[in-house]
Amino acid sequence: MDNNILICNDDGINAPGIDALVREVSKIARVSVVAPSIERSAVGHAITLSDPLRVSEFQKEDRWSGYSVSGTPADCIKIAVNELLDERPDIVLSGINLGSNTGINVIYSGTVSAATEGTILGIPSFAISLTTYTNPNFKPAAQFAVKMVKALPDLKLPESTLLNINVPNVADYEDIKGLIITRQGMSPFAEKFEKRIDLKNRAYYWLGGSKAPIKKDNKIDDRAVKENQISITPIQFDLTDYEYMKKLRGKITERSLL
Amino acid sequence: MDNNILICNDDGINAPGIDALVREVSKIARVSVVAPSIERSAVGHAITLSDPLRVSEFQKEDRWSGYSVSGTPADCIKIAVNELLDERPDIVLSGINLGSNTGINVIYSGTVSAATEGTILGIPSFAISLTTYTNPNFKPAAQFAVKMVKALPDLKLPESTLLNINVPNVADYEDIKGLIITRQGMSPFAEKFEKRIDLKNRAYYWLGGSKAPIKKDNKIDDRAVKENQISITPIQFDLTDYEYMKKLRGKITERSLL
Repeated sequence: MDNNILICNDDGINAPGIDALVREVSKIARVSVVAPSIERSAVGHAITLSDPLRVSEFQKEDRWSGYSVSGTPADCIKIAVNELLDERPDIVLSGINLGSNTGINVIYSGTVSAATEGTILGIPSFAISLTTYTNPNFKPAAQFAVKMVKALPDLKLPESTLLNINVPNVADYEDIKGLIITRQGMSPFAEKFEKRIDLKNRAYYWLGGSKAPIKKDNKIDDRAVKENQISITPIQFDLTDYEYMKKLRGKITERSLL
Repeated sequence: MDNNILICNDDGINAPGIDALVREVSKIARVSVVAPSIERSAVGHAITLSDPLRVSEFQKEDRWSGYSVSGTPADCIKIAVNELLDERPDIVLSGINLGSNTGINVIYSGTVSAATEGTILGIPSFAISLTTYTNPNFKPAAQFAVKMVKALPDLKLPESTLLNINVPNVADYEDIKGLIITRQGMSPFAEKFEKRIDLKNRAYYWLGGSKAPIKKDNKIDDRAVKENQISITPIQFDLTDYEYMKKLRGKITERSLL
């Protein structure tokens, strides 16, 4: 029970995914929960600068307690580590998200952003998502999270790297077909807006769409998910395109552009 | 006047920075403006999934017109390209932001996220920010944006790469000291929450803090800004840590983790 683990999510502190995670991880570590008071999906790596944050104590039935925050997942990690917790966490864990976080969607993900924030603060972190929106069974993913917590010291994560984990929705842990270390897929999302008319005859738009077909490359996160395998993608947040940076230095002379 | 340019920002369609940009760029290209109806700073790469988007026509005095959108910068680019514009833009331009977008802060930036969204949609894009919060003079930055629009075809940006540009706040264009192709700084932000008590005796928290001192490495965005030079950082959104991915493949055998 040496590890002190901070758990967050983006589906809100009342979501079943975080409950499943807290219940399993509590068996092997001390757990603190600081999570958004409401759903904060697809908020990207947002932080709240123009409003103050409110913090409330939260009790999940007779099982666990934590803090709910009127902000984003990144806000939760910042305020937990800087203000709310007595002790600095050893690990930040974000999830279990309802729905996969793969491909380009990773940059929109609130779940991933909580783990990113942990990493920025110098704490080994991972995000974990369940790859379904219907009939979720969070238990196997929570069991895998426990295995990851135990394995983490041996993985020697670089300082600025976190793990983005997607777990298939299966009945039992034994049904998980395998595990692949993947890279982030880059297939574009085929977006479509649906225009509707409200009761006052004014237009409004819903964002929808579908993912482009996945290439047969089993080292991509989307592909692993499709094959019912666990996907682990190491990600980082230095966005510099180093290869092109060198080319650009060759191309741009100060004179010609200024 | 061949270029058809979509302009967005995160300070809101009424901000002076976008006005300065539209005025200058309109001199050399056809311009469409689709921007958030209100300030959306530090929203990260957020998109709006759980609320519908509203779109209103917007008239900036007698100068230019556009659409204001009840969403994030990324929402604006998506709905502009997929729904509002008759013609696909040749370039997406985001800014001019009031305040620099450098270092780790880039991942929180709504300004950068609009340009990222343009890139995801296959359109060459750049974000431009003015490195001050006080007494801004947007004109020189807008003039530089025009130079960049003209230079862009020769730069042969890779498909998934955009440019994050920071321009110093100077009186005249001629006062800009130089231009550096930089990488994203990775210095952590020293955060501090200020706890206050409201009129009903309840606590609330403001996020504040300051940047860690900048290392004397003039190839970093923060450093260029400090020296009153223009900083151009090529950035991309494949977050995979490829180097560690290979190590992790060596470390993790499926058996040992599953």
